[in-house]
Amino acid sequence: MAQFKRIAVVGAGLIGGSILLAAARRGLAGSLSCWSRSESSRATLRAMDVAEVFDNAADCVKGADLIIVTTPVDTAEQTFLAISPGLSAGAIVTDAGSVKAAILLAARRLPVANPFVGSHPMAGGEKAGASHASAQLFENRVCFITPTGQDDPKSVGVVRQFWEALGSIITETDAASHDEIVAAISHVPHAAASALMLAVMDQPGFRLAAAGQGLRDATRIAAGEENLWVGILLANARHTVTGLKAVEQRAAELRQVIEAQDAPALRRLLAEARIARQSLEPSA
Amino acid sequence: MAQFKRIAVVGAGLIGGSILLAAARRGLAGSLSCWSRSESSRATLRAMDVAEVFDNAADCVKGADLIIVTTPVDTAEQTFLAISPGLSAGAIVTDAGSVKAAILLAARRLPVANPFVGSHPMAGGEKAGASHASAQLFENRVCFITPTGQDDPKSVGVVRQFWEALGSIITETDAASHDEIVAAISHVPHAAASALMLAVMDQPGFRLAAAGQGLRDATRIAAGEENLWVGILLANARHTVTGLKAVEQRAAELRQVIEAQDAPALRRLLAEARIARQSLEPSA
Repeated sequence: MAQFKRIAVVGAGLIGGSILLAAARRGLAGSLSCWSRSESSRATLRAMDVAEVFDNAADCVKGADLIIVTTPVDTAEQTFLAISPGLSAGAIVTDAGSVKAAILLAARRLPVANPFVGSHPMAGGEKAGASHASAQLFENRVCFITPTGQDDPKSVGVVRQFWEALGSIITETDAASHDEIVAAISHVPHAAASALMLAVMDQPGFRLAAAGQGLRDATRIAAGEENLWVGILLANARHTVTGLKAVEQRAAELRQVIEAQDAPALRRLLAEARIARQSLEPSA
Repeated sequence: MAQFKRIAVVGAGLIGGSILLAAARRGLAGSLSCWSRSESSRATLRAMDVAEVFDNAADCVKGADLIIVTTPVDTAEQTFLAISPGLSAGAIVTDAGSVKAAILLAARRLPVANPFVGSHPMAGGEKAGASHASAQLFENRVCFITPTGQDDPKSVGVVRQFWEALGSIITETDAASHDEIVAAISHVPHAAASALMLAVMDQPGFRLAAAGQGLRDATRIAAGEENLWVGILLANARHTVTGLKAVEQRAAELRQVIEAQDAPALRRLLAEARIARQSLEPSA
């Protein structure tokens, strides 16, 4: 039997579309509904034919017992306000945003009768939009859930089970720790890859045709949609700024030992980076 | 008929081993010879069974009409001195080093009877050593050759044809331009990826288990062998330092607009980086 009566996805792009496909494939709900701001996404979602597609966010959540908000993080507050009139009492609301402290604040706009539990599936890609959605997107990927400590444990359990049903591996932590962790493993790397791309494209020697796989890999995440990332980086400004300062300092440190032709110091730094990088590989 | 009587590879690790495999498969030479400093590499090379393996660099080049020096760039001078006693008059010497101005200087140590033409195939990988060699390593990859303008055009032509025979796409430029180009597309990205890895591993929120594909990609080149990269970065210090300064400045610029919550400026920078990054993808 389906776990949920009806699941509503509010703002169905890459993440939301993938939730719908995954939930449909696994039969998690009696029915699925969704809304997207963009008309072309709504057309894509209609063509997918897994969920009832609404033109209005409040209509989309009517009758749903689980609502996943997947709009960009800087529009979360606006989305919570928009869906509030349609929410059934007791329906649980979660999200999929890359920051959590700011979203928790925004979620205060929801009716008190609707518990909110923050989520962040560590899944995505450079290609935005429902047309790139995949039912496997969350399989074996970390999904953070960030209870406040004052939540009804049942709501937390429901949200946890939902992501587990999509194949995710749950990490439960508070919103502040989440934001610090995700700055280190995602937001700072994103900004640093953008900085590298901006820096090398300005170099007099930059030749597009000669650029190899190394530069492509190092800058791949910089191809992400800026409208999404502006919201994320600004909402997690404190930790991202700290991390970017560390990137600047480490780049300056490397630059100085290169300038000083200090081979032993450069070797130590590169070895430290290599060992850290190797530890990122899942052991074979 | 084979293009060369005998090709000698001096310092056969990943690059040298791949040259031997590729030359053997394409029947470029009547015979192949090689030397490696490391006993385990020599054992690997003997097991490959495509070239005569020597314990001594000077012996390895005897009777060869083309010699490719593939030792780390900071040992180039020492290698040129070591092979000089064994070189046949007129034998052409080239290399595969990631810097060219410093190698051209070192090549003055070669006998006047041996023309030197610098080469740099843009191929490699994080995994060093002949055991990771591949006959396809150079196929459809850019290979720089850097004549001085005072070379015998015949020698330049021979070196060009050699790399073309291995499947490379030749870019001919002077050593100074080469070093500037390669700083932008390879050396600066390498140092920046190392700086990012060092910075994020120090962040209080860094969690190995949660690190996603984005961070892995952005830091992949930082897994490179430090002994190789110390030599490269120090030999191309001037351009690498300039590029690292630009990385620091761009990171600081992003940090400042994030700190100032300046969404339009952040959007502009991220969009600029995204567009530059997208231009790196071969058009589909």
